[in-house]
Amino acid sequence: MTTKADRLKARLPRGFVDRIPDDLRAAEKMMADIRKVYDLYGFEPVETPLIEYTDALGKFLPDQDRPNEGVFSFQDDDEQWLSLRYDLTAPLARFVAENFESLPKPYRSYRAGWVFRNEKPGPGRFRQFMQFDADTVGAPSVSADAEMCMMMADVMEAVGIKRGDYVIRVNNRKVLDGVLESIGLGGDDKMGQRLVVLRAIDKLDKFGVDGVRLLLGKGRLDESGDFTKGAGLDETAISKVLAFTSAGGANGSETIANLEAVVAGNDKGVEGVAELATIEALSSAAGYGARVRIDPSVVRGLEYYTGPVFEAELTFDVTNEKGEKVVFGSVGGGGRYDGLVSRFRGEPTPATGFSIGVSRLMTALKNLGKLDTSDNVGPVVVLVMDRDTASLGRYQKMVSDLRQAGIRAEMYLGGSGMKPQMKYADRRGAPCVIIQGSQERDNGEVQIKDLIEGARLSSEIEDNTVWREGRQAQITAKETDLVSEVRKILEAQAEDRANALKAG
Amino acid sequence: MTTKADRLKARLPRGFVDRIPDDLRAAEKMMADIRKVYDLYGFEPVETPLIEYTDALGKFLPDQDRPNEGVFSFQDDDEQWLSLRYDLTAPLARFVAENFESLPKPYRSYRAGWVFRNEKPGPGRFRQFMQFDADTVGAPSVSADAEMCMMMADVMEAVGIKRGDYVIRVNNRKVLDGVLESIGLGGDDKMGQRLVVLRAIDKLDKFGVDGVRLLLGKGRLDESGDFTKGAGLDETAISKVLAFTSAGGANGSETIANLEAVVAGNDKGVEGVAELATIEALSSAAGYGARVRIDPSVVRGLEYYTGPVFEAELTFDVTNEKGEKVVFGSVGGGGRYDGLVSRFRGEPTPATGFSIGVSRLMTALKNLGKLDTSDNVGPVVVLVMDRDTASLGRYQKMVSDLRQAGIRAEMYLGGSGMKPQMKYADRRGAPCVIIQGSQERDNGEVQIKDLIEGARLSSEIEDNTVWREGRQAQITAKETDLVSEVRKILEAQAEDRANALKAG
Repeated sequence: MTTKADRLKARLPRGFVDRIPDDLRAAEKMMADIRKVYDLYGFEPVETPLIEYTDALGKFLPDQDRPNEGVFSFQDDDEQWLSLRYDLTAPLARFVAENFESLPKPYRSYRAGWVFRNEKPGPGRFRQFMQFDADTVGAPSVSADAEMCMMMADVMEAVGIKRGDYVIRVNNRKVLDGVLESIGLGGDDKMGQRLVVLRAIDKLDKFGVDGVRLLLGKGRLDESGDFTKGAGLDETAISKVLAFTSAGGANGSETIANLEAVVAGNDKGVEGVAELATIEALSSAAGYGARVRIDPSVVRGLEYYTGPVFEAELTFDVTNEKGEKVVFGSVGGGGRYDGLVSRFRGEPTPATGFSIGVSRLMTALKNLGKLDTSDNVGPVVVLVMDRDTASLGRYQKMVSDLRQAGIRAEMYLGGSGMKPQMKYADRRGAPCVIIQGSQERDNGEVQIKDLIEGARLSSEIEDNTVWREGRQAQITAKETDLVSEVRKILEAQAEDRANALKAG
Repeated sequence: MTTKADRLKARLPRGFVDRIPDDLRAAEKMMADIRKVYDLYGFEPVETPLIEYTDALGKFLPDQDRPNEGVFSFQDDDEQWLSLRYDLTAPLARFVAENFESLPKPYRSYRAGWVFRNEKPGPGRFRQFMQFDADTVGAPSVSADAEMCMMMADVMEAVGIKRGDYVIRVNNRKVLDGVLESIGLGGDDKMGQRLVVLRAIDKLDKFGVDGVRLLLGKGRLDESGDFTKGAGLDETAISKVLAFTSAGGANGSETIANLEAVVAGNDKGVEGVAELATIEALSSAAGYGARVRIDPSVVRGLEYYTGPVFEAELTFDVTNEKGEKVVFGSVGGGGRYDGLVSRFRGEPTPATGFSIGVSRLMTALKNLGKLDTSDNVGPVVVLVMDRDTASLGRYQKMVSDLRQAGIRAEMYLGGSGMKPQMKYADRRGAPCVIIQGSQERDNGEVQIKDLIEGARLSSEIEDNTVWREGRQAQITAKETDLVSEVRKILEAQAEDRANALKAG
């Protein structure tokens, strides 16, 4: 036996979690709901492996200061550098480029999968988390972006978030690029500075306009004393950027008019605003007008977006870990990334798509009390009264018969004694247990103990109230009638559950 | 634009594969079938992350010469060593140890997930592959092992492998340990040599008795000239080991009698044979007698097994890459691993379980023509005849209406021209396309073109045979009747498919 000193500690690295049955079943249900929407829109499933060549993934994570970090990388036995994917978009770009000739164009696909970030984990921030993406590659038109927005809206409703509790916010990188050009930040050599501006704007939710103003200028000192260097813009430039982010009006046409004023005279900006107007028109025509909203404050932190960007935001309040009421916020988003596939192909390959944060959406549904942990009936437990091989064979035969009839069942496999067996059956939520000692065996009988009814009856006795005429909590049945008698009990319990649900 | 020289090559590292729609849908179906069996047996889902602390996983991979290899390992931003899991058993042991107090005992659980091996890939050997495991922790009795064997048999039938095409082969490490003790290989200091013997026996399928005889003795020179050092046993010892592996008789009782002779006088060996006899008795009592078979040649390569070991073998012939007929072989297996959880807990924690190789089983089903690639109907495609925003809005409304009626539909998002649109619809297996040019729009009409019927009619014209009275391959409908007319076509096509299936 190992001593305490040399014993290994059983623990997970920070930022990783185990998933327990209720979570798994609820996630399964939610994923199926999302998948149905993607299928309905004509998308096809496809999956790539979790590992790619490091260079194929590229470096697009929003942390400019540590370009090699954020990603788990390692060498294989041929000393090639491999990485765990940090999103599902970069691998999709590799897949499409590799199989370009054989895929239908446009290529519409979806995929769910784990992604990894080698970062400091925090509350609600994991180092392994699941995304569920949909993408259209080879569709240059803004109709494809509009479709993404509508599909995100349909996903929200499919998982149970009601209209009014979410909004799909849309913006366009081209408009921002136009603004940046007009303040002298155009051209390849200004890419680094543009990225700092982008990430400053992305902090609007977190730091407000005043915080972002500092980040656009000299920099910002946070409460802990850490100083974040700013983009170094002058007052005029800062005002222009903030005029852009605050261009949101009372409705779409007002916002578009505001944006037109901001980008007036800049071709790229004008083109971007026109695309937003088209998204607005197409969404309205299809009945999504109130749900897809142009919002100039959305930028999305990732560097690879080249056109429309969108975000699914849940608008209801939740209480955060500090006890404050806050808007739940983003559960997914995406945008157009025309450059990502062409990195491999050397010719322009337009693409657009979005990603749903599965864990984040699960948390939201939990908050809304809408997480489906649908009633899962535990197994019928056949107790082990005698441990000789002949008796065990009989018990084994009983569970086999029950299973063959489609009834979830098991023979108790732990240590001996009646008490641990009943405790186990209780822990597993067993609907009933089967008991056959030597006396029952000699009579060709079994005892069936209805645990749900038994619990109800004993709580009635404690309460001194009688709810309704009870079933018998324990019956003696012929061994040959085992399956039919168990089925009767399961049906009676199902009826009770249905009635309880009706009664509210 | 990038030049060819600086363009990235889109490629996957060797041993990794993308999964396409047919494979994904078939895998989904197969996994659901397996899950149903595990549920029926009273097991609960649980999932652990793909990454664990390296020390928590331990080094149990069957390659003694390279103890640090075979696993993908890396450091996180805190410089802790992490690894990608190489199986699902070691992480389960960590999970159970970490949550021991809160779990029901015995703890019955299942999980599917990707595992990784940092090895040279080969035909059918991947560096990322999926396993689907079930385990019982906290059940010391051999009944738990017997249940695993029966559950594996039920899994085989649930996925469509018929009785007679598979067998669950069972052996016991205790019997082997007894044999090894009797030839002087007992004790901790002989662990290395025992492992060499174990892996030699594991090669019986591959090299036959003569090859294994060499591996048990001085060593074996293979065709390529590589020499594998042997276990260095003398002739008497080799005969004893081979007497054990060839102890299989015409039936269970004969095999047990043979094994009793081999281990006579060695307590551990006798105990092991008695356990095999119990597994045989319990399986027979539950009606699995012919499917669960004691076979002393099964050893399983992994070091952590401590008792019964089992393997699900498919017994039908397939043609290998050299054109030879070979038995398909193993699609999964497992055994008792009483030491794995106790590494963390410092007290004995019995456990048993098995693993199904999902990709391997998929290959088997493909060979049997039983892979379910159930008919997946492509999306209805609304063609884009006019590209002004108002027209696009109308097309968008049509797809929204179709989707709201539960009909898979999309608006064509690629470049212009009729030909690429029809080609696209064809590639996607679209049941029909919707056409509305300016003339139809003015009349409040749409054209619906039935692509399946169209293809059938034109093949009839080519064949000069008429199969049956055709439907109209193209109809003009009122725009307001779009959904109901499309539904009629889908129903007619479904009926045709059902009739074709009936006709064989």
